[in-house]
Amino acid sequence: MKRYLNTYKQELLESVIPFWLQHSKDSSYGGYFTCLDRKGQVYDTDKFVWLQAREVWMFATLFDKVEARAEWLEMARHGLSFLKEKAKDKEGNFYFSLDQKGNPLIQPYNIFSDCFAAMAFAACYRVDPVQEYADLALATFDNILQRSANPKGRYNKTYPGTRNLKSFALPMILSNLTLELEHLLGEERVNETSRNIIEEVMEVFYQPESGLILENVLEDGSFSDSFDGRLTSPGHAIEAMWFMLDLARRYGDTALRDKAIERGLRTLEYGWDPPYGGIYYFLDSKGYPPDKLEWNQKLWWVHLETLVFLAKAYEMSGNLQSLNWFEKVHEYTWSHFRDPDYAEWYGYLDRYGKVQLPLKGGKWKGCFHVPRGLFQVWKTLEKL
Amino acid sequence: MKRYLNTYKQELLESVIPFWLQHSKDSSYGGYFTCLDRKGQVYDTDKFVWLQAREVWMFATLFDKVEARAEWLEMARHGLSFLKEKAKDKEGNFYFSLDQKGNPLIQPYNIFSDCFAAMAFAACYRVDPVQEYADLALATFDNILQRSANPKGRYNKTYPGTRNLKSFALPMILSNLTLELEHLLGEERVNETSRNIIEEVMEVFYQPESGLILENVLEDGSFSDSFDGRLTSPGHAIEAMWFMLDLARRYGDTALRDKAIERGLRTLEYGWDPPYGGIYYFLDSKGYPPDKLEWNQKLWWVHLETLVFLAKAYEMSGNLQSLNWFEKVHEYTWSHFRDPDYAEWYGYLDRYGKVQLPLKGGKWKGCFHVPRGLFQVWKTLEKL
Repeated sequence: MKRYLNTYKQELLESVIPFWLQHSKDSSYGGYFTCLDRKGQVYDTDKFVWLQAREVWMFATLFDKVEARAEWLEMARHGLSFLKEKAKDKEGNFYFSLDQKGNPLIQPYNIFSDCFAAMAFAACYRVDPVQEYADLALATFDNILQRSANPKGRYNKTYPGTRNLKSFALPMILSNLTLELEHLLGEERVNETSRNIIEEVMEVFYQPESGLILENVLEDGSFSDSFDGRLTSPGHAIEAMWFMLDLARRYGDTALRDKAIERGLRTLEYGWDPPYGGIYYFLDSKGYPPDKLEWNQKLWWVHLETLVFLAKAYEMSGNLQSLNWFEKVHEYTWSHFRDPDYAEWYGYLDRYGKVQLPLKGGKWKGCFHVPRGLFQVWKTLEKL
Repeated sequence: MKRYLNTYKQELLESVIPFWLQHSKDSSYGGYFTCLDRKGQVYDTDKFVWLQAREVWMFATLFDKVEARAEWLEMARHGLSFLKEKAKDKEGNFYFSLDQKGNPLIQPYNIFSDCFAAMAFAACYRVDPVQEYADLALATFDNILQRSANPKGRYNKTYPGTRNLKSFALPMILSNLTLELEHLLGEERVNETSRNIIEEVMEVFYQPESGLILENVLEDGSFSDSFDGRLTSPGHAIEAMWFMLDLARRYGDTALRDKAIERGLRTLEYGWDPPYGGIYYFLDSKGYPPDKLEWNQKLWWVHLETLVFLAKAYEMSGNLQSLNWFEKVHEYTWSHFRDPDYAEWYGYLDRYGKVQLPLKGGKWKGCFHVPRGLFQVWKTLEKL
């Protein structure tokens, strides 16, 4: 596996990061463009707050973990000002989207904008210890926890009481966020929060009969035989398993490590599409038709997160299944998502592996999963 | 074209309607199952209110317009009781969905449930003149008009003022609903409402430069260069054009007729996918990547509504382009959506025409577009 080290490193530093540096900065109004076509031309100027925050996080993290390049810090600061000044309402909730100038377009109807904003502030504080950044990160984190019982707030369309579901997305993202904020939260608070999160991710949303992690369960943790209750997202579950591997490493917990590897591999086998290759976006755990029309598409982030999981699983355990799967997923991912002619990767393939949206960035794809995935695999391979 | 008359009639009366009669009735809790697999087996028991209402409307309409079969009336009444007793909140708004027993699941976050409920009550009143049905139809219609300035109510996630868009769906559906309620509204009110609706559908959402109808425009009718503002849905626009043809017939308005035919054909040429056949679900009017991942799929209702439009266009004008397009769309539709082995039609094909969800009914597909489309084409061909 180690022979791929330079492939990942070079792609990150010589192609993907230069693409975002060159094309995504909005020098007129601040923040970043993320709707970029195949060659990097802007085709829409709206600013999606979670993608703004993710790009800030990415550049601050590169500066912190790879090399103290001034242009990376400058790029992170550029996005951070916009995020601080334009992206939150009076109560400290982060909007979903803004127009180019930073006027709010879509209300804070979930807390994912806030999660990535907290990560962005925390990463910036690490490289640029301005007290305001730490305060913003902690205030946002507290606000997330406060809102976590009803993350959609007044925009929640569920009628209370009939079928109260809770979503895997929240504990999953908190497991990563908590570690990202460790320098601000302190060890004790991280330990406390992590214990509960590991329980949620590894037990509450896990269904022993099928060996699968469900996207939604009833409040008491039981199965709901409904569209939402049957839903699985293999990429989501596998991404969570590498967050668990990071926690297992932190605590030297080999039982957690082995369980995370086993479940990640089980999910990958379940989610792989043998005739055409690649991993499905959504599957119904009972094999019924899912209600998501995009269920059989192959998405970039699913494959990158799977590569991170497999690299970490192999590095931490020497597990040979992880090695073999890494080769297979690496081959599919690099030959289908990478654009051989222009920088950055495609995001959306149909079931058969054909590019079905020729964009490099959009409303849901920004400077995040490709560079973070390349970075994580590169750094993991360095340990081998 | 007339040689297809029996094809449409037989498919409706001998295959599609028997399928719903046999499989969709929930004798235990009332209402209908709509999540039916290829053979008609129930795979999910939730009740989606707009599909409940559409099925009531369909059976009442068959009883009224085709033949006074007792089983059709009984089936309509069966759904109507459930709709009356379970589907609305205290303010008279209709929920989006209920569980099998009729407990509310998803709040009334838009007014499409209400539109189809009003149609269902009005159709039942026509065949079964119970005053309560008329009262419910009119009260629901008034409520729709009252809510039309902000159809999503408190669930509206748009930040007010930055980019206030209005949606084509509302005038489009009202153009059909008004005629469906004519026996209750009276001629004068229909005329008054229709004038405004025709203006909205034919002028406000129409973009002369491209010859296309947009899904969303700014409140003053101008173009918004954004994902929502650039969005087109060819099937939606073409369906609206046959509503316009019905209005043109009603008023003997040949100018409206010709304009509707011209725009429907223009939209069809734009939405047709030459290499693989079929009509795209969504396209960006500037040719940019749409934000809908399902944009290039081929959906049953788009094709059925197009056949209705083409049949009406040809019958009303003798337009030869409509005739030629009818042959082409008929061939694609019958060979791809119809299941040769079991009753009812598939709903969801991928771009290449392969079935990608093997269901006959689900969360969005019920007893509506296939039977209504077959019925409309059959009745139009009878006039030739």
